[in-house]
Amino acid sequence: MHLLKDSLIKSNETLDDLEYHDLKIIQDPNGYKFSTDSVLLANFGRAKQSDVYVDLCSGSGVVAILFSCKNNIKQGYCVEIQEKLADMCTRSICYNDLQDRLSVLNIDLKDSLKCVKEESVDVVTVNPPYNTNGVMSDIDEIAMATHEVKITWQEIAQVSSKILKYGGKLFLVHRADRLIDVVDSLRHYKIEPKVLRVVYPKIGKEPNLILIEAKKGAKPGLKIMQPLVLNTEDGQETEELKRIYARKN
Amino acid sequence: MHLLKDSLIKSNETLDDLEYHDLKIIQDPNGYKFSTDSVLLANFGRAKQSDVYVDLCSGSGVVAILFSCKNNIKQGYCVEIQEKLADMCTRSICYNDLQDRLSVLNIDLKDSLKCVKEESVDVVTVNPPYNTNGVMSDIDEIAMATHEVKITWQEIAQVSSKILKYGGKLFLVHRADRLIDVVDSLRHYKIEPKVLRVVYPKIGKEPNLILIEAKKGAKPGLKIMQPLVLNTEDGQETEELKRIYARKN
Repeated sequence: MHLLKDSLIKSNETLDDLEYHDLKIIQDPNGYKFSTDSVLLANFGRAKQSDVYVDLCSGSGVVAILFSCKNNIKQGYCVEIQEKLADMCTRSICYNDLQDRLSVLNIDLKDSLKCVKEESVDVVTVNPPYNTNGVMSDIDEIAMATHEVKITWQEIAQVSSKILKYGGKLFLVHRADRLIDVVDSLRHYKIEPKVLRVVYPKIGKEPNLILIEAKKGAKPGLKIMQPLVLNTEDGQETEELKRIYARKN
Repeated sequence: MHLLKDSLIKSNETLDDLEYHDLKIIQDPNGYKFSTDSVLLANFGRAKQSDVYVDLCSGSGVVAILFSCKNNIKQGYCVEIQEKLADMCTRSICYNDLQDRLSVLNIDLKDSLKCVKEESVDVVTVNPPYNTNGVMSDIDEIAMATHEVKITWQEIAQVSSKILKYGGKLFLVHRADRLIDVVDSLRHYKIEPKVLRVVYPKIGKEPNLILIEAKKGAKPGLKIMQPLVLNTEDGQETEELKRIYARKN
């Protein structure tokens, strides 16, 4: 069995541990690689087993694979525009035996409605390209996954709103300094932000990430959670980060 | 001198200590009384001595008095619709010998442009009525100061934008759960939120307040500060709250 599985990995790729229930991810060491933000997002969101689930900007599939397993989702879709990443994502899904529960749509997110019915989705997750400017990688794959080259946050919010059912939920991670842009577009497309969690890399440091739960058609009213601090002052993982990585229960 | 000053206080009123440079405030024990939010706001904002300053929804004047003194402002105005509160505010200003630096405009905030020139103000502070619903006080004075009876947050943002110079700053305190409403209106009226600080009454408790600095005409980009925690788990004031109240340097 394992020999068969190993054939899913190409010679230039690595098989990395997601440190949760023995889940693995196939990655290209020279291409776009997942980071903590994906793990935080997968842990922040939640869904019912029967929910129809879509992960947008899936990349190599880390969020979708972790989120589907944690919530035991039966029907999920990963939307990824880049052929190479979509292909790696498909193979990672197979490697983790999730092929009956997760399908990859290798399409432009803006074309989602060609494959996903309007107002049919219960839960969306998205770890979008964060940056509007700044230094961009020479490698197209990384640039597209990290910068708003092919899609803007506003377009992602618009598509999310179209595919979500009334009352459906969107979970996202974004850069802390873009909070106002993020909530502005969400409200514009009638997905009301309901929960905010600010992520601090270290006690006393500026926050770098935000986690947001938003609900289509909901009334205004935001719950701000406790700050999420990832590392202690001496650089050790906090108890909460250990729990998120399931290194501790 | 003190006898003369004491004549400023009516028999049903009390003279309360602002615990900062011996500043005092005249209040009606049965009416609207200031609370920590005003002190936090006055401490959060900052201005230059030469700035033209306006405090909206001034109430008894706590924010304006503290803010003017801390920043040594020479030209400030308090806008307060309620005659009784505007009168108390005027007398508190006199009691603290600030009459050459702070004037009270007993007008409806919506009429501000009749008294304040468009785009003439450098700094605005506002501790607005927070609530859109919920239990309202039977006492009109308290209801108007705490609920959006006479004015909504959107109207306050609109007026702030009109009186502020391009590049002028708005400092505000609001309820944490209304963050999205607050930033939505600010951006709508071209006052970009630049700094956010979330206030937690106690470690581990949900936050109740937000402090925001916004700048007219600024580019997007938010700095989220460290959380401001007011009390320790055993109910003692934190070191930072002590510093804010100038109980400690």
